[in-house]
Amino acid sequence: MNEKIRWLRNKIGSLNLDAMIVSSPINIKYLTGIEAEGILILARKENYFITDARYVEAVNSLLTIEDEIIVEDMQTLSKEDGENLFLFCENVGFEENYVTYAKYKEYMYKYKINNLVETEGIIEKQRAIKDNEEIKYITKACNITDDCFEYLLNYIKIGMTEKQIAGAIERFYRINGADGLAFDSIVASGPNSSMPHAVPTDRKIEYGDVITIDMGCKYNGYCSDMTRTIFVGKIDDEIKKIYQLVLKNQLQTIGEMHEGAISKNITKMVVNDFELNGYDLIHALGHSVGLELHEIPTLGTKSEVILKPNMIITDEPGIYITGKFGVRIEDTVIVGKSTGVPLTKSNKEMVIIKG
Amino acid sequence: MNEKIRWLRNKIGSLNLDAMIVSSPINIKYLTGIEAEGILILARKENYFITDARYVEAVNSLLTIEDEIIVEDMQTLSKEDGENLFLFCENVGFEENYVTYAKYKEYMYKYKINNLVETEGIIEKQRAIKDNEEIKYITKACNITDDCFEYLLNYIKIGMTEKQIAGAIERFYRINGADGLAFDSIVASGPNSSMPHAVPTDRKIEYGDVITIDMGCKYNGYCSDMTRTIFVGKIDDEIKKIYQLVLKNQLQTIGEMHEGAISKNITKMVVNDFELNGYDLIHALGHSVGLELHEIPTLGTKSEVILKPNMIITDEPGIYITGKFGVRIEDTVIVGKSTGVPLTKSNKEMVIIKG
Repeated sequence: MNEKIRWLRNKIGSLNLDAMIVSSPINIKYLTGIEAEGILILARKENYFITDARYVEAVNSLLTIEDEIIVEDMQTLSKEDGENLFLFCENVGFEENYVTYAKYKEYMYKYKINNLVETEGIIEKQRAIKDNEEIKYITKACNITDDCFEYLLNYIKIGMTEKQIAGAIERFYRINGADGLAFDSIVASGPNSSMPHAVPTDRKIEYGDVITIDMGCKYNGYCSDMTRTIFVGKIDDEIKKIYQLVLKNQLQTIGEMHEGAISKNITKMVVNDFELNGYDLIHALGHSVGLELHEIPTLGTKSEVILKPNMIITDEPGIYITGKFGVRIEDTVIVGKSTGVPLTKSNKEMVIIKG
Repeated sequence: MNEKIRWLRNKIGSLNLDAMIVSSPINIKYLTGIEAEGILILARKENYFITDARYVEAVNSLLTIEDEIIVEDMQTLSKEDGENLFLFCENVGFEENYVTYAKYKEYMYKYKINNLVETEGIIEKQRAIKDNEEIKYITKACNITDDCFEYLLNYIKIGMTEKQIAGAIERFYRINGADGLAFDSIVASGPNSSMPHAVPTDRKIEYGDVITIDMGCKYNGYCSDMTRTIFVGKIDDEIKKIYQLVLKNQLQTIGEMHEGAISKNITKMVVNDFELNGYDLIHALGHSVGLELHEIPTLGTKSEVILKPNMIITDEPGIYITGKFGVRIEDTVIVGKSTGVPLTKSNKEMVIIKG
């Protein structure tokens, strides 16, 4: 049995659960490496992956005997066999944050389960702390992203559209060894930059524009996430002031991202400093990154989560002036003993491109 | 109010629901055009989109007064305001196939709802029948896919990897006006083609290979889906026989996809003919296509759905010989009065490329 499944079996035992159904494909990938539709069942003794005929061959060719996972085709699994999976299991854990209400009812009926118990993200909480292999993959994704940003600084020209620039990011990632995009890139120029989640448009880059570029790739399934705000030709004084305020807070936050720090306290420092200057932080300060772009914990004003070494979390303060412009600066940061360390390392000083 | 929301308000009225919470982002996009995190609430009188600060500006700039949708920031919505949304609402519909068990409990508590009622995919069922605009977009996505296939026939060469070919498909789509991929392309060569859901590998194309290419793009948010199985240099007699059997069934199915036909009957004809010849149909015969790649209805042996004009469904029989090869032929087909009409029109005769 692999280490991650062994860990989970111990964990559910300590929660007085007799079995668990893992339904989230990302959690299944994390635990087993399997990327296929289906559910992972940790029953009393055995582990099962219940899938359908399309995937049986591929999954069996991925697994080894050491994995100790029995692959079953759900179409050939009788109702009786299904019910027997949970024989003598009184309490069966499930993922209430992933399983739909309809599936919840189906599990109860199909597998004749008396008591489906909410597991409150036990696997997601474990995923928050990255092992060495995971750190290696995320670091590589961050390196590719840094290279892409350097490439963009020479690539972007006045008259190009936001969509063109987004296309260049995607091509760069593909050519340079990434699996692909971690998310649809944001390239928001001029007034579009005032929307934190702008979608690239046909707007052409102009002299005097602010451009916010939020981008990330995947490497071996693991994500990077970085934002830089750059300038075309010149920078207005109002923007300069805001940029310096955002950057100051972004840098201070990196320093705060150490073992024992509490998420909400880190966030409140930024909120307070922004408010002192007359601005609001209108989104979370950051989010954990891993197999998914948005994982737990979040850096928010209500999050009691205490940071631990080898958590990997974004640090992304931003200020947005509706209809005018926005400034966001973001790094993917690994939590250390006494400070965070950014894994994305691109220049954060104000960059003016000639365009 | 737009037509689709008006339709839904009438529909929930006829189901004795006083209000409905729409949580699926795809359903929200279908009903309103909005692409942002949040939920759409059809309350007794007003319609609300509850989102967060990141999206308020973008959503408000998309909507017009005629949409009659009030945008609220969930962070500034008090518990009292939240409860008032459903004042005098006894039965509130929700999407049990989309809403997680955790969210279900949250809605009950947060909005003080007495009775959350399962709505059994009412919006998805409506989405199955495409309007003229939707047909136009899907047809365009299919045209681009046909062009891509023609391009590939000249592009593919012996010694190229499956990944390279998949990359070429993605580039072609981007350059030729698609939004991007509808799904990760399948390029499965030689023995890899025996896995219906193979992922492109570094395997190089060889003389004598079967290559199964399953690909689709999005245009204005709407998907296409097509599979062709082609041959490099030569075709073995065993494969030829199987190809002809698959093609015969694929063509017959198109003829059966007319108004009034029952999904399971269409599917069983293929299952029976395959079995007569000693093979199994190991996956569904087809699935509806629209804003999502996989929509309802499905062509399966248990589906009682009666086809209606302007449903758009794939027709994709396949036979897989484990460890050796596979043959699948797939079109995106629009259901008509007396026959289906393929929207993907690429050549389906056996194509041998020189490579």
